[in-house]
Amino acid sequence: MPNPAEDLIAKHRPTLERALEAIRSREYFSQYPEQLKAQPEGAVEAGQQAFDSYRAATFPIEVPGADSTVNTEISPYGLPMDISYPHASVDTLISAAQAAIPAWRDAGPDTRAAVAIEILDRLHARSVEIAHACMHTSGQAFGMAFQAGGPHAQDRGLEAVAYGYAEQVRHAPSARWEKPQGKRGPLVMDKKFTAVPRGVALVIGCNTFPTWNSYPGLFASLVTGNAVLVKPHPRAVLPLAISVAIARGVLAETGFDPNLVTLVAENPDEKLAADLATRPEVKVIDFTGSTAFGDWLETNARQAQVYTEKAGVNTIVIDSTDDYQGMLNNVAFSLSLYTGQMCTAPQDLLIPRDGITAGGEHKSFDEVTRDLAGAVEGLLGEEKRAVEILGAVVNDAVVGRIDRAATLGTVVLPSRAVDHPAFPDATVRTPTIVAVDAADEQTFGEECFGPVSFAVATDSTARSIETFRKVVGAKGALTASIYSTDESVIDAMESAAQDVGVALSVNLTGGVYVNQSAAFSDFHGTGANAAANAALTDGAYVAGRFRVVQSRRHA
Amino acid sequence: MPNPAEDLIAKHRPTLERALEAIRSREYFSQYPEQLKAQPEGAVEAGQQAFDSYRAATFPIEVPGADSTVNTEISPYGLPMDISYPHASVDTLISAAQAAIPAWRDAGPDTRAAVAIEILDRLHARSVEIAHACMHTSGQAFGMAFQAGGPHAQDRGLEAVAYGYAEQVRHAPSARWEKPQGKRGPLVMDKKFTAVPRGVALVIGCNTFPTWNSYPGLFASLVTGNAVLVKPHPRAVLPLAISVAIARGVLAETGFDPNLVTLVAENPDEKLAADLATRPEVKVIDFTGSTAFGDWLETNARQAQVYTEKAGVNTIVIDSTDDYQGMLNNVAFSLSLYTGQMCTAPQDLLIPRDGITAGGEHKSFDEVTRDLAGAVEGLLGEEKRAVEILGAVVNDAVVGRIDRAATLGTVVLPSRAVDHPAFPDATVRTPTIVAVDAADEQTFGEECFGPVSFAVATDSTARSIETFRKVVGAKGALTASIYSTDESVIDAMESAAQDVGVALSVNLTGGVYVNQSAAFSDFHGTGANAAANAALTDGAYVAGRFRVVQSRRHA
Repeated sequence: MPNPAEDLIAKHRPTLERALEAIRSREYFSQYPEQLKAQPEGAVEAGQQAFDSYRAATFPIEVPGADSTVNTEISPYGLPMDISYPHASVDTLISAAQAAIPAWRDAGPDTRAAVAIEILDRLHARSVEIAHACMHTSGQAFGMAFQAGGPHAQDRGLEAVAYGYAEQVRHAPSARWEKPQGKRGPLVMDKKFTAVPRGVALVIGCNTFPTWNSYPGLFASLVTGNAVLVKPHPRAVLPLAISVAIARGVLAETGFDPNLVTLVAENPDEKLAADLATRPEVKVIDFTGSTAFGDWLETNARQAQVYTEKAGVNTIVIDSTDDYQGMLNNVAFSLSLYTGQMCTAPQDLLIPRDGITAGGEHKSFDEVTRDLAGAVEGLLGEEKRAVEILGAVVNDAVVGRIDRAATLGTVVLPSRAVDHPAFPDATVRTPTIVAVDAADEQTFGEECFGPVSFAVATDSTARSIETFRKVVGAKGALTASIYSTDESVIDAMESAAQDVGVALSVNLTGGVYVNQSAAFSDFHGTGANAAANAALTDGAYVAGRFRVVQSRRHA
Repeated sequence: MPNPAEDLIAKHRPTLERALEAIRSREYFSQYPEQLKAQPEGAVEAGQQAFDSYRAATFPIEVPGADSTVNTEISPYGLPMDISYPHASVDTLISAAQAAIPAWRDAGPDTRAAVAIEILDRLHARSVEIAHACMHTSGQAFGMAFQAGGPHAQDRGLEAVAYGYAEQVRHAPSARWEKPQGKRGPLVMDKKFTAVPRGVALVIGCNTFPTWNSYPGLFASLVTGNAVLVKPHPRAVLPLAISVAIARGVLAETGFDPNLVTLVAENPDEKLAADLATRPEVKVIDFTGSTAFGDWLETNARQAQVYTEKAGVNTIVIDSTDDYQGMLNNVAFSLSLYTGQMCTAPQDLLIPRDGITAGGEHKSFDEVTRDLAGAVEGLLGEEKRAVEILGAVVNDAVVGRIDRAATLGTVVLPSRAVDHPAFPDATVRTPTIVAVDAADEQTFGEECFGPVSFAVATDSTARSIETFRKVVGAKGALTASIYSTDESVIDAMESAAQDVGVALSVNLTGGVYVNQSAAFSDFHGTGANAAANAALTDGAYVAGRFRVVQSRRHA
């Protein structure tokens, strides 16, 4: 083990201990401050400068066997990017990754965890530049790009390190086994147990949360001894290119082969992810993206442990509330944040057609939907504030879905185009709410990705819960939410959420939104429904990334 | 939660705690004494009587929706069995299992673990009758059938309970989450985390170790909240029928639906396992058996978490030894025990063609193989002792492979037929050792199930290790073993074992054999090679059997 790594173990031990305690207690913990103002002096300027330096240039990163470059990004804000990335062949990438594994395996879990945390610390120090990179690939507003793409993603990475580490050290690395033999002396064996990685891991990133959705798989695979190929979405390469470059730097500094983490940039028509995913050497795959490709991976990448996060139908059941305005404001924010382009954003609002009780008063279905529309309009009325919540539309398909939604029911809230004061070429759209009937399941029963939500008129809350069971049972969901003043209704919804395997939020009216999932406390996804076959993060997410190989002999 | 279950939690807490400590320390632990004499007075007679009462009768067990009976067992000892078991349709079995789940899920991990341990205790009390059942289905001698089919299997079941329990309670069941908000008051949420089972689990048993290979999956799935369909091998139904009946009894006593554990007896041509395995409701599958069906399950049961143990090529590398006779005796016993029909029995003995150093003296390849043959003959020279080690041949295909082996190389030790003093109709055969060259990889490079081993002449120990890497890297293995006095050779073998992912035993010359795998200390299989995609037992074996579903609300 190189000496720098020994120092790192001591340096990062307290962080690791706190993270290990947090994944047990599930209480609030964050290692990486989410406030921009917590960044050191000059970080904002330096981050902007670094980001600008990448544009119209070849990104400075070593890729083993690079044979050409690719240039595939377009900022949703219209900012010229023109960044080229080195590109290599599948064979070269895999060979380089494989060659890096043995020394990393032999280093053991303590060293690997320390190196991983050092990488996360360095990522944190570069959060501003990563925020710009996330903003101009995902379309998130800068504030969100900073938090979600920076500290929140880093916390999720640390959570994966803690789980991966805990899993490897849950049993003793060696043991003396003494089996009594009655009057004869005992049988005595000395045994060693080594965590052995699966091999080459592949992380396939998405367009909307390039770092947040990639760091868990990257760090879970890395800490368990695997080499990781990081294949970003062709439209969101920069955030992961920066991240990979930082990881490679730390690995080299600590005496390891930087090819333990490699950038795999691809041409959009190249299908590199599919080629890599079915290679026998690739043993672990993490994917966030479409149901079609996620299902394809689960079916075809048979040699690998495959973790997927796909599409789902996130649902809110509205039964009754004590805080009508709190509910409306909370839901309005959830629908608006990042233009409804979060995998956790609600889509279906199931409301009894006879209305609800709110603060002791009856509110008709029309009143509820109209008041919700009003809350959205109120939230997004001022252009400058609106763009900070909405960000930009990530791609044209989202606009197409907004337009199509208007034909699917009664438009309660039409989507508006908003002029971005700073980026005139950005496409910014407000959410639309479309009222439909519970019978229109073919409309609201599938994911409609983007700022489209359906207010579904049901016969009763009991029928809302039935519809929730049916739709989410078939299509999955990453989030579900209920508003009710009646504990028996909440119980019924909790029971339904357990049956269809989706995380539930109850009566959110304050500063927590159903879209939000906090590292170390909230499990993101469950692995128990069609929206994801894994959760961020639990034991199942890490346990299959390595194996235990023992060696025993007579003492 | 029913009151009897509450009492059980207190009763079994000490056992659970000891098991939890053992899976961490990997030191010696056994809950269930392996000595027949530790059974209470009268147990031997009562067990024999119970076993006899099952013969020529319909086995007394309730199977939901039973529509007919099946009768498929033949004792390898020639004892008339003629036992009929109720048979039901796939639809009925699945519906009954599903209906049983919600109350079991809601009971929580503490109750489930306590009920599971109560089942294991009852199984232990019935070990003699289960031993007879194992003997007359697998062909194991009674002593081995008692230990492996009784206490050792029960310990493996308890180990699975401990892992499954630990995995469910590794995080708090509820938490108060307080996120500081600077000068404003903190955001405060109350969160609940519920372990939710995957659904219906299927255990597919094997002919040779009906209980030992089935209890881990059965108990791992049960303790994590699933309902379990137990599908025995058609020729080894009785041990699992008794086990299922005992489990159902405990479940009913403790207020749960006995259909949480159901016997699925099938006609051999019925392919019930394949039908069940691809049903959408079946979410977890444990299988021990052929590579062909294991691979089929992994490919086709895409809706389920599939754990398989299949065939492999167990290998011993012989380089040098300080204890020649100890080595010969140890290997001879490993080849002979249960007629080489253990999944852990060695098959390939890789020996330098120029011989080895043994106790400072040179021994040629021919001497080593001849002396090993002599050690086997010495061990099995006396008929009465021989049958207690060998047991009976489990099926005719084994005899066919013995006969064919004689044509594959130079027979160093021919297989003999042994008359069984108590069971004249039993087929009892001693092992054969066939010498081949390292070039004959098509011969020794595949599993030849039964008492056939190949003494492979290699160019050197270094080439032996290369051959081990190649063969086991391709075909997998459950065990590997090395004899060497040179630590650098042992290191090279350990490194190779880690690369191909197989557990290693070093210089076994005493009372521990490479075939043996002790619950709580030895990992059986690794999941890292083609012989098994899972290990008994580690975190990966239990973590995917349930999911965590959370519910959160403002405090």
